[in-house]
Amino acid sequence: MQGINPNFENKSKNVRPLSYYTEGLQAGNRFVLSECITLAESQLEEKRKLATQILHHTKTSASTIRIGITGTPGVGKSTFIETFGLYLIKQGHKPAVLAIDPSSQVHKGSILGDKTRMQYLSANDKAYVRPTASGNVLGGTAAFTKETIQLCEAAGFDVIIVETVGVGQSETEVDFITDVNLLLLQPGAGDDIQGIKRGIMENADIFIINKADGPQLELAKQTRISYQNAIQLFHHDIAGWLCPVLLASSMEKTGFDTVWKAIEDYKKILVSSKKFWTNRTEQEIRWFSMRSAALIQELVFGNPSVKKPFEHLTEKIRSEEISGNTAIQEMEKIFNKIIQI
Amino acid sequence: MQGINPNFENKSKNVRPLSYYTEGLQAGNRFVLSECITLAESQLEEKRKLATQILHHTKTSASTIRIGITGTPGVGKSTFIETFGLYLIKQGHKPAVLAIDPSSQVHKGSILGDKTRMQYLSANDKAYVRPTASGNVLGGTAAFTKETIQLCEAAGFDVIIVETVGVGQSETEVDFITDVNLLLLQPGAGDDIQGIKRGIMENADIFIINKADGPQLELAKQTRISYQNAIQLFHHDIAGWLCPVLLASSMEKTGFDTVWKAIEDYKKILVSSKKFWTNRTEQEIRWFSMRSAALIQELVFGNPSVKKPFEHLTEKIRSEEISGNTAIQEMEKIFNKIIQI
Repeated sequence: MQGINPNFENKSKNVRPLSYYTEGLQAGNRFVLSECITLAESQLEEKRKLATQILHHTKTSASTIRIGITGTPGVGKSTFIETFGLYLIKQGHKPAVLAIDPSSQVHKGSILGDKTRMQYLSANDKAYVRPTASGNVLGGTAAFTKETIQLCEAAGFDVIIVETVGVGQSETEVDFITDVNLLLLQPGAGDDIQGIKRGIMENADIFIINKADGPQLELAKQTRISYQNAIQLFHHDIAGWLCPVLLASSMEKTGFDTVWKAIEDYKKILVSSKKFWTNRTEQEIRWFSMRSAALIQELVFGNPSVKKPFEHLTEKIRSEEISGNTAIQEMEKIFNKIIQI
Repeated sequence: MQGINPNFENKSKNVRPLSYYTEGLQAGNRFVLSECITLAESQLEEKRKLATQILHHTKTSASTIRIGITGTPGVGKSTFIETFGLYLIKQGHKPAVLAIDPSSQVHKGSILGDKTRMQYLSANDKAYVRPTASGNVLGGTAAFTKETIQLCEAAGFDVIIVETVGVGQSETEVDFITDVNLLLLQPGAGDDIQGIKRGIMENADIFIINKADGPQLELAKQTRISYQNAIQLFHHDIAGWLCPVLLASSMEKTGFDTVWKAIEDYKKILVSSKKFWTNRTEQEIRWFSMRSAALIQELVFGNPSVKKPFEHLTEKIRSEEISGNTAIQEMEKIFNKIIQI
């Protein structure tokens, strides 16, 4: 129990004893799970510390799979995930759906919206759908989502689906918390239709042409060939893995067995090459490193005695009053004043 | 002259008065330019400060163009750059060739090697080829290369070519210091032949199939079609810019006029959309922000009282003795001890 005060007292109201949370998680109580995630996301240090204590009572397991799902708005991500989730429940799994959406921080274009997300999946007691996301946590959205994943796994959810909005940097972040990444596309080739930003396609392990049904099926098949040809031009980190391009239809509920098989195939390769665990341990180390770096940045740049001159210098660079070089010399002086080693 | 002590004295030997450097640069003296770059790369604070003073006497100009050139070993990068440089000199330009190679820090697979690089170009007094690279500078290799670029421009070089090794993260870094990025490919499609890592292709503005000559010309043309098709699937940040895929031969000295025209076309679009200057100002701000962040990391994590426990905690995570969560709580205690705000 290093780093934790064993005499830790809960000063805040609305906080219950540790056993309430750990026992609730073990029982798979979705309400307790939500409370735990709220604690982990809290800005209050004492709540975060309680979340840390809860996380101490959890352990990651190779029996879970963490799946990143990316795709631009309009590609049908929510419907796909809901149908996929219900498919997984039929197979005996317990899916949890989380979301990384950096844009929700600035209250614009949140993928979570106001309406109830995935109502059939949300209502199913074998599933957990996290209704809101907060990104204002040290080390970025991925850091807090990593903790949420662990809490979901502690509550018995074995397929963790992390949804990203597909237009920002969340897709590269998701790479640090997932085992496998899916990219959803729609029938019709070309950047105008897909709206995919540079770099996102490169992070995917499995490509899925969604809405492959009815009059769009033929176009979906053509799109598939275009992407199969394009993918051949790129390396994949796992030797021998040629990213499959699959067809699926949420409406007709087709293709989900193939999608799940591809995920299982990919996991098998990860496990047999020992990449599965080394990836997760490296993710844990990366999380620690990123969060340490973020922590020192927050402690230093969060303070007005550093923040104000930093912003002032940035503006002076923008107006071409001073060079970046001059500005950095000023920052060095400020840093040396506040650090006592 | 903010941030600079006007009474600054040169305590170190081997350092000359400021006017020696500024006048040498203005005269286009390549030897003085090399000395200035060495000062900027120095680990000694007083030398770095002198470099900062020199940089104060320089100004960026829209008449220069900063070109990133990427491609995996074997694609013929050095020969291409040498031929291209000699072509540019014929057109009345003064090219400078720099390199970003993070691998040179660990003494493996340096693209710079021991042999004389680009001997014809190096010998030409209208060109400047930087023979060695050092990456151990605050804010990473891109940060120091940005300073080197400014020094080269101050010495009258108007086409700055920044070469990257094409297998690491240097390609995304180069984006923060260049105006336009070229990706060199070789005839023959597919990842096995090109050896290009994920994400690198996405950073390119202009694609060049090199070695498009003799018996390989037909294959080069086919490769061109494959890439033209693949590129249509990706967005480019500049609306309306469809990355051209060009053919070139360093051996037959063909295609370089087309390459240069594509660079000029791209620059025209950048300038007319005002992206050229906003890009450069944003690069300066980004440089300042990155270097500030790197500076505080170095000041804190460079100190044994932080470095040792951080490494110790990392090892404990690796051996699964503790979780990342426990480790971060320990780090928070350490940070709070050393920061006095």
